[in-house]
Amino acid sequence: MMINIGVVGYGYWGPNLVRNFAEIPGIALARVVDKNPKLLAVVERRFPAVKVSADFNDLLADPSINAVAIATPVNTHFDIALAALRAGKHVWLEKPMTETAEQARQLCTEAEQRGLTLFVDHTFVYTGAVRKIGELIKRGELGRIYYYDSIRVNLGLFQKDVNVISDLAVHDFAILDYLLGEHPIAVSASGTNHFPGTPENLAYITLFYASGTIAHANVSWLAPVKVRQILIGGSQKMITYDDLEPSEKVKIYDKGVSVTDDPEQIYEMRVGYRTGDMWAPKLDGTEALRRAGQHFAECIASKAVPETDGRLGARVVALIEAATQSMRQRGETININAEENRP
Amino acid sequence: MMINIGVVGYGYWGPNLVRNFAEIPGIALARVVDKNPKLLAVVERRFPAVKVSADFNDLLADPSINAVAIATPVNTHFDIALAALRAGKHVWLEKPMTETAEQARQLCTEAEQRGLTLFVDHTFVYTGAVRKIGELIKRGELGRIYYYDSIRVNLGLFQKDVNVISDLAVHDFAILDYLLGEHPIAVSASGTNHFPGTPENLAYITLFYASGTIAHANVSWLAPVKVRQILIGGSQKMITYDDLEPSEKVKIYDKGVSVTDDPEQIYEMRVGYRTGDMWAPKLDGTEALRRAGQHFAECIASKAVPETDGRLGARVVALIEAATQSMRQRGETININAEENRP
Amino acid sequence: MMINIGVVGYGYWGPNLVRNFAEIPGIALARVVDKNPKLLAVVERRFPAVKVSADFNDLLADPSINAVAIATPVNTHFDIALAALRAGKHVWLEKPMTETAEQARQLCTEAEQRGLTLFVDHTFVYTGAVRKIGELIKRGELGRIYYYDSIRVNLGLFQKDVNVISDLAVHDFAILDYLLGEHPIAVSASGTNHFPGTPENLAYITLFYASGTIAHANVSWLAPVKVRQILIGGSQKMITYDDLEPSEKVKIYDKGVSVTDDPEQIYEMRVGYRTGDMWAPKLDGTEALRRAGQHFAECIASKAVPETDGRLGARVVALIEAATQSMRQRGETININAEENRP
Amino acid sequence: MMINIGVVGYGYWGPNLVRNFAEIPGIALARVVDKNPKLLAVVERRFPAVKVSADFNDLLADPSINAVAIATPVNTHFDIALAALRAGKHVWLEKPMTETAEQARQLCTEAEQRGLTLFVDHTFVYTGAVRKIGELIKRGELGRIYYYDSIRVNLGLFQKDVNVISDLAVHDFAILDYLLGEHPIAVSASGTNHFPGTPENLAYITLFYASGTIAHANVSWLAPVKVRQILIGGSQKMITYDDLEPSEKVKIYDKGVSVTDDPEQIYEMRVGYRTGDMWAPKLDGTEALRRAGQHFAECIASKAVPETDGRLGARVVALIEAATQSMRQRGETININAEENRP
Repeated sequence: MMINIGVVGYGYWGPNLVRNFAEIPGIALARVVDKNPKLLAVVERRFPAVKVSADFNDLLADPSINAVAIATPVNTHFDIALAALRAGKHVWLEKPMTETAEQARQLCTEAEQRGLTLFVDHTFVYTGAVRKIGELIKRGELGRIYYYDSIRVNLGLFQKDVNVISDLAVHDFAILDYLLGEHPIAVSASGTNHFPGTPENLAYITLFYASGTIAHANVSWLAPVKVRQILIGGSQKMITYDDLEPSEKVKIYDKGVSVTDDPEQIYEMRVGYRTGDMWAPKLDGTEALRRAGQHFAECIASKAVPETDGRLGARVVALIEAATQSMRQRGETININAEENRP
Repeated sequence: MMINIGVVGYGYWGPNLVRNFAEIPGIALARVVDKNPKLLAVVERRFPAVKVSADFNDLLADPSINAVAIATPVNTHFDIALAALRAGKHVWLEKPMTETAEQARQLCTEAEQRGLTLFVDHTFVYTGAVRKIGELIKRGELGRIYYYDSIRVNLGLFQKDVNVISDLAVHDFAILDYLLGEHPIAVSASGTNHFPGTPENLAYITLFYASGTIAHANVSWLAPVKVRQILIGGSQKMITYDDLEPSEKVKIYDKGVSVTDDPEQIYEMRVGYRTGDMWAPKLDGTEALRRAGQHFAECIASKAVPETDGRLGARVVALIEAATQSMRQRGETININAEENRP
Repeated sequence: MMINIGVVGYGYWGPNLVRNFAEIPGIALARVVDKNPKLLAVVERRFPAVKVSADFNDLLADPSINAVAIATPVNTHFDIALAALRAGKHVWLEKPMTETAEQARQLCTEAEQRGLTLFVDHTFVYTGAVRKIGELIKRGELGRIYYYDSIRVNLGLFQKDVNVISDLAVHDFAILDYLLGEHPIAVSASGTNHFPGTPENLAYITLFYASGTIAHANVSWLAPVKVRQILIGGSQKMITYDDLEPSEKVKIYDKGVSVTDDPEQIYEMRVGYRTGDMWAPKLDGTEALRRAGQHFAECIASKAVPETDGRLGARVVALIEAATQSMRQRGETININAEENRP
Repeated sequence: MMINIGVVGYGYWGPNLVRNFAEIPGIALARVVDKNPKLLAVVERRFPAVKVSADFNDLLADPSINAVAIATPVNTHFDIALAALRAGKHVWLEKPMTETAEQARQLCTEAEQRGLTLFVDHTFVYTGAVRKIGELIKRGELGRIYYYDSIRVNLGLFQKDVNVISDLAVHDFAILDYLLGEHPIAVSASGTNHFPGTPENLAYITLFYASGTIAHANVSWLAPVKVRQILIGGSQKMITYDDLEPSEKVKIYDKGVSVTDDPEQIYEMRVGYRTGDMWAPKLDGTEALRRAGQHFAECIASKAVPETDGRLGARVVALIEAATQSMRQRGETININAEENRP
């Protein structure tokens, strides 16, 4: 089945989607919609065969188009996606999926009732690094997961309508959902906007899980250096993932801690250490966006549920909401509704 | 004036104190006290001229000794320090100063009333790196301080009687007090002990200041790699401080963000960026403990207040208490009593 | 004056030239020549307005074309460039310029006699890093230059018709010519091909200068990690240049060595050290190839001599020849003919 | 059998030997000789039970002493060691063993005839890193060894009586002898002294082996940064060894190159690549000097030949001589006498 896709929004991320869809077998790039005629002119020059419109309704009305990718500002996602689903089209949504979890869940229900694929582009889930880590966790190589600790900081780009949690911690929320398969039960976040009238530009978020796992994300638009580092500690092995390393992004340490019941040590510290080799596996080098696009096409064809479906996207939005609420109350614990966020 | 010093506790840190005091002009190492006869035998072999005792009272009773350095477990600090002060001796206390801020303040009062020097060994304050950063901040080179962000993680050593905040974040609390000259108004912390019956081994602490500065410390005994990194962001310049770098520990970035009032940009983001040169100043290579020891001797001689006096030590203990309390309530904000903690 | 350029060769590097020339004001990309029809089809699809030919003579015969860029295998450079010059066209040649220095000098004479611009694309000379280093050296900030030491290694790509000196050390030879403005008087090189019938894949080259400066390049296609590092030592300051660093590529160290005449030290070592700050200047981020293209256009317009003109290119080829000869004699010193290589 | 050892020379390295021997079971530190009474006073204070002398003959004449460790300037090694052997004492010599290979061989013969142990302190051979690499090579994991490439540079310390080859490349010569078990057949070196009247402070040395292996060392006292890096390339695997890394000093890359005979590729490059995982083995953390001391004691007790015996030491001195000779002739190839240097 050939997927004829229309892309809405040709600003910051749209060109990547267009380039990517144009190169995936089984997907035909049919139309690009943007309100800015200059951007449409660029599309026409680069892709003479692709139709362009300033009006999103042209896309909805085109019966040859069966899928829509939405890369517009977040506050427009809900209306556009809902209209697309109601017009019977499969939907690819940029992250974060919507402004509110309530909107996200409504889109999920709409898509489920219509048997349409609703895909959220949490691209990081499709990187070779995250997939390798997922493999190791699923095989049990790390043992019990003690913690996930992420640093995601750099200088700018300041966003004007979303805060730094929505811009950067969103990646950690999606990665955590993919890796742990468990939803947090509570969140506590701190952060601030150093410039009145702008969104929060720096935040520290802690997520608590029923299993005892704790996760933390340190996100900032105000750091002098760019850092993208994640530590994951398990009872058997520990991982470092540095996304800026050109090679050896993921390192697995045969290091750990164990608590002893040795009665000899009863008055001493009962923790023992183990240190061993380090190992950096070769990672699949396929571009993450390519893998995401192929997965979207396969899910449409086979009616399978995407790995980053609307439900995952909704859980991520729920965490953004909760973390932002906690941050604005200086860290007050926000409990997460388990029922609504069942994985 | 010659200082005859007695050292109490020859376990983990005591030998460093002994070695250090033995080499500082103006300080004479007179006696070492420890309950373990094997450790005392080591002292005798290495320092034949130094007296040793198993009983702390020998030290108190020795009128030739006018200063006492205490490197015993934290839960013994208060009693030993109080006895030493009451015996008219100047006191050097390892960090953290005491178990409770109340105890710490009581020691301060005792020392003040007796005109004795009460020094807390927050060694980091005496490093070339922290002093250089302090100089830059005091000269106003960084502009307004937006944030301080510290990572202090490694594998072990797990402590049995103090948690990771008391063991590691204590350094950040002292450095912050020295650099900012401002006490936080509130703290929110998260953390956990992954092994029942042991102290918390991982914590994330946020400090809020009245000036708008925000500080964060990420401390852990459960990381596969050792990290000691601090970022400090100001309106004019930003700093990275990596204590594990053999050279170039401190880097100053001529980078910043400014908010514009340009009416042209009123509907756009009003933040501008500036990036320029980076500069790594040569640091004073004097060993921090040496500098601390010399400062202690000078303060005794001149009756000056040490840079890390008991009041600073008490403020640090108050933060450890507040952060631990917040951590055990999953991040609930703890307000800090400004009155008690006046710098 | 508009430059209508034809590009010969659309293999590995040609597409970069085409993309680059297409975006430089004052240069119009007029025709692309390649023997491979598939590659020409790619050009046609991407650049509908550009003419394509399998036959280089089409380009020569086209009077509207006044400049030719040559990105074919090295062994074809001389014939193509000579024909282009004889057809009255300005020439841009990829590096190395020709197989022999004799050929290179012949092209220079041809271009000079005809008043045509002959440009050799030693792109590194146009990077922000090399230009900043050149500025510092020209201002005398480094003092007397003691040495230049380069490491340029990685795994593959093995070339089939040129050795690793011609592929990698060529960059150092051009950078050295630009930075020092002095031609070596002798060269000694070692190296080997580990696979019979293939060109040398690893080489160590030392260049000796009349001024006492010594230069060394360590080049290899057989290293497990990619390294691009240069150290430059002067009597006043020293430089490190790491081309793989995303930022802070160039660091200037206020470090040095000086020889003392202190009679007190006459029987001791007479060398003193100085260490001070380190400084990483902000570099001009313009793409090197863009700056090279603009410079080519300006030289044609103003009849100025390019910074990387044919004479520089010829000196580089002379060094490749001499180094290869020395390498094949296990390091025997090859003296360089100063007369022929006068800068 | 208890070894009573006397140490001659308490300058730069002597204190390390004294400390080390004092802690090794089976070795008793009996006497320290130095011409400087101030240094002897330091020994007396630290080691009250150890005898001290200004006169080396006191040591020779002491029948209770059966081993002598020599840490004096190189130009005194031969005479002192010869006298010690003739007095029937086992000898530990600092590196380089002697000024000339002829002297070194004479000491070997003397020791062999008397059945005494002659140990040369090439400490690097006893590091956990070099031993792990040796293990891997001996097990054949690297396949055929293509190259060994070492960088060993820093700022100072300039030596006044030996050049940088003798000071730094000496380590590579010993490591190579240990790892390869093959002696080079030729050497070509370049280098210079930038300060008249001082030894060469920078050198590049290439060693050629009959097996086709090529080795290179880049050594300098004039670099702004300290580097200690070795690359080793084999047909099966490749290694990086960074001695300044606090952990993960040795990394093994499952990367390689193979030459194909595929007739399809006969006109193409016939080299294929393989890239896979990287692995950093845990290294034995025993201090190298400790392991060396224990090995010395064991060899004396069991009359075994030390891993760094006088013959290895003599081969290293022969390479220093040959490399220095080549360097002073600007890289002229010096052939090595295989007969004399048989491993």
